[in-house]
Amino acid sequence: MEPQGDIAVIGLAVMGQNLILNMNDHGFTVVAYNRTVSKVDDFLNNEAKGTRILGAHSLQEMVALLKKPRRVMLMVKAGKAVDEFIEQLLTVLEPGDIIIDGGNSLFEDTIRRVKYVESKGLLYIGTGVSGGEEGARHGPSIMPGGSPAAWPHVKPIFQAIAAKVADGTPCCDWVGEGGAGHYVKMTHNGIEYGDMQLICEAYHIMKDGLGMSADEMHEVFKAWNEAELQSYLIEITRDILAKRDEDGAPLVDKILDTAGQKGTGKWTVISSQEMGIPITLIAEAVYSRCVSAMKDLRVQAAKVFPPGNCKIPGDRKRWIDDIRKALYASKIISYAQGYMLMRAAAQQYAWNLNYGGIALMWRGGCIIRSAFLGDIKKAFDKNPDLPNLLFDPFFKKAIKSCTRSWRKVVSTAVKKGIPVPAFSTALAFFDGFRSERLPANLLQAQRDYFGAHTYERVDKPRGEFFHTNWTGTGGRVASSTYTV
Amino acid sequence: MEPQGDIAVIGLAVMGQNLILNMNDHGFTVVAYNRTVSKVDDFLNNEAKGTRILGAHSLQEMVALLKKPRRVMLMVKAGKAVDEFIEQLLTVLEPGDIIIDGGNSLFEDTIRRVKYVESKGLLYIGTGVSGGEEGARHGPSIMPGGSPAAWPHVKPIFQAIAAKVADGTPCCDWVGEGGAGHYVKMTHNGIEYGDMQLICEAYHIMKDGLGMSADEMHEVFKAWNEAELQSYLIEITRDILAKRDEDGAPLVDKILDTAGQKGTGKWTVISSQEMGIPITLIAEAVYSRCVSAMKDLRVQAAKVFPPGNCKIPGDRKRWIDDIRKALYASKIISYAQGYMLMRAAAQQYAWNLNYGGIALMWRGGCIIRSAFLGDIKKAFDKNPDLPNLLFDPFFKKAIKSCTRSWRKVVSTAVKKGIPVPAFSTALAFFDGFRSERLPANLLQAQRDYFGAHTYERVDKPRGEFFHTNWTGTGGRVASSTYTV
Repeated sequence: MEPQGDIAVIGLAVMGQNLILNMNDHGFTVVAYNRTVSKVDDFLNNEAKGTRILGAHSLQEMVALLKKPRRVMLMVKAGKAVDEFIEQLLTVLEPGDIIIDGGNSLFEDTIRRVKYVESKGLLYIGTGVSGGEEGARHGPSIMPGGSPAAWPHVKPIFQAIAAKVADGTPCCDWVGEGGAGHYVKMTHNGIEYGDMQLICEAYHIMKDGLGMSADEMHEVFKAWNEAELQSYLIEITRDILAKRDEDGAPLVDKILDTAGQKGTGKWTVISSQEMGIPITLIAEAVYSRCVSAMKDLRVQAAKVFPPGNCKIPGDRKRWIDDIRKALYASKIISYAQGYMLMRAAAQQYAWNLNYGGIALMWRGGCIIRSAFLGDIKKAFDKNPDLPNLLFDPFFKKAIKSCTRSWRKVVSTAVKKGIPVPAFSTALAFFDGFRSERLPANLLQAQRDYFGAHTYERVDKPRGEFFHTNWTGTGGRVASSTYTV
Repeated sequence: MEPQGDIAVIGLAVMGQNLILNMNDHGFTVVAYNRTVSKVDDFLNNEAKGTRILGAHSLQEMVALLKKPRRVMLMVKAGKAVDEFIEQLLTVLEPGDIIIDGGNSLFEDTIRRVKYVESKGLLYIGTGVSGGEEGARHGPSIMPGGSPAAWPHVKPIFQAIAAKVADGTPCCDWVGEGGAGHYVKMTHNGIEYGDMQLICEAYHIMKDGLGMSADEMHEVFKAWNEAELQSYLIEITRDILAKRDEDGAPLVDKILDTAGQKGTGKWTVISSQEMGIPITLIAEAVYSRCVSAMKDLRVQAAKVFPPGNCKIPGDRKRWIDDIRKALYASKIISYAQGYMLMRAAAQQYAWNLNYGGIALMWRGGCIIRSAFLGDIKKAFDKNPDLPNLLFDPFFKKAIKSCTRSWRKVVSTAVKKGIPVPAFSTALAFFDGFRSERLPANLLQAQRDYFGAHTYERVDKPRGEFFHTNWTGTGGRVASSTYTV
């Protein structure tokens, strides 16, 4: 008998299982394998019962069940496990077969693995998969990159199981070579950190500043989800605020305020630092999680510096509207920064990224899916070479309509002692970005003073460098090869 | 004849030359070498004329001129050049000899090099040297780490040429094993980025908000340098503002506002991200340089979003006092963050850092030298286990005396559209750090909702994790090994 398997999935944690069930729903025959083999039978006897999913109890058995070229997708923990499976798979697969990594791998690892697997005559795809449990089960956003020759073989499966936007377009398309898919997924996750932090800051102001209850805030997020902020994260926040604990009290109030963080947020920040792109909002979001994790120090500090009265007077309804606008404007900044980062990465790694296509991939299925991404898609459709999202007429108008409220909310939170690091860094970035002249002239003077780093002048052509002997005692040697 | 050379210095850019002249002043016989050998003669015939400095035209000649154990200090560009010289030196040096890297090397490179050079039977020191041209010439701050056995051989030279504080204590002491010296120097540079950015923001508010001239600001910085802000960077800012161009106008106004950045600032941020330590102010300072570098985009954005009237009404003298306090409070936060980072690194890399000793090393000679560091030294002298600088009574009181002005300055800048990213992130950090309860409970609910990441509860012991089936449709499998 000919092998029946369309694709194998290795790794039966929740994401792997749900992807398999999703593929099965779309008519594909999936071979399930897991390093701890008992999990395979457990899966077949429970979630996969009554489906055409096949189980494999060894990699050999798995490979024997697959049509050629074989497609094997890893849904295992990013890092060493991926490299180990690649080594094992290379001993059982054949040239032309395809290894797919669907985990949150570091894009630099993916760049290395594409080269390595291709050097063995096989093909490799590193793909972002976003949408959490639910997304994986019913339609995730999928962001594949790697060996272009592999894409036609994977496309039918990925586009079938991916989320679809209203007109039926799948939230999955080829991103680019090497680590492009994982880079875009990493950026997605960084933006997700930012979106979550923005929602938390809005919640914080409403809760502590306006003294609102979970029920009242549930109503606010419900209303926000009907307009320009409509998105998955606003929607689940609405639902979270309505969720009751067993004693009838809001569950959210019982949850400890210490947030965890995994790799992708910090990787986004690290990459931005390497490339010199100011994604200030994502950085503040990652750091905010770090501050939240210092619970014991915070409790101690709250005794040393007890907060004052942080109640915000005035019309509550109007404040809620101001907060909504502050959130919206900050979100625009965050996405503008994220797109700046991808543009720099595309240049650095020679990827031909389709920015509108990325917005479309994120439009559905993934954690940051939103109406907003449709507007970004439109902006890049109108002008694929848009140098910055803020220059698009739609977003320009949106920002302008929000600045008054944005400044009001940030300045009030600052006065009241409610921390809004993401709202305020977004505003500081905006004000810096639209400053024709920043105070960096003084900074350049300082660097030239103590380190002979030289400077350019406003009245001379760019690229002409000057050094001033500020003290009258410096030597004749410039600092060409040494940095203080 | 016995060899006369106490130490060799390789690399005759401004820092190398000045260190050699400094060592010569203190009675040491220095052998000077440079890859481009003509620079050696050029140096001997000019800056080194009439000194006992010896020139070498090859590494062999250099080694022959040195007493044993030989001490060879590299003052070359960080990176490949250091590794190349190490390889060459290993062919001409002997076991027991000492290689010293005085450049701004990445601490991870230094960790690797210490191990490598020790494996060859030699000793290695990676040392921070700060103070710019002037410091190198007349007394830098020196932060050595690496092979402990090398320290006694290097100590007399380094402590002789280092800056001294008022009581004669040198701004140089042993930092720790491996990359400890370069880590502390890296953190120093990160803090330097922060200090410079804070000064620029104060300058920006005075210039654009209060409409002050360079002369007027010169007077302000002159006054600030007489009190709690007394420091090298305030001092040179005072002098920069007084410097005239050839046409008599303030030179600072002629300098282009695009700041460069080299490795150490971004390395500090990257390390903080790796370790989860929120050094938000340094991160904003690095990003601010990136924004300044986007001059063309900024000019374009200034046309799309023309700034409004940013003049700040009210009593100018009072505002200047408020700005001083905002700067001072922000600076305290930045150093508190920097010390949190070093504490985490000490734990991560098993270094036994002396925090008071580090403050003393930075007290003189280096770019961030200040009266302020004397206060930090005192804080750690009183309590070497101080968990956070903000808990020290002196700094606690200082912060409390500034908060009112700090909030006033940040909220006003926010309303007026003057970007103050460092002032405001410092305040947001402070308000977050002293919050017993942050909104991260909502964030944890979101993560558990879409990714089954679990959460802890306020009414249950730490370490007990809960998962809620928020939608009522999730499966029975937790997200143990996969992150969305």
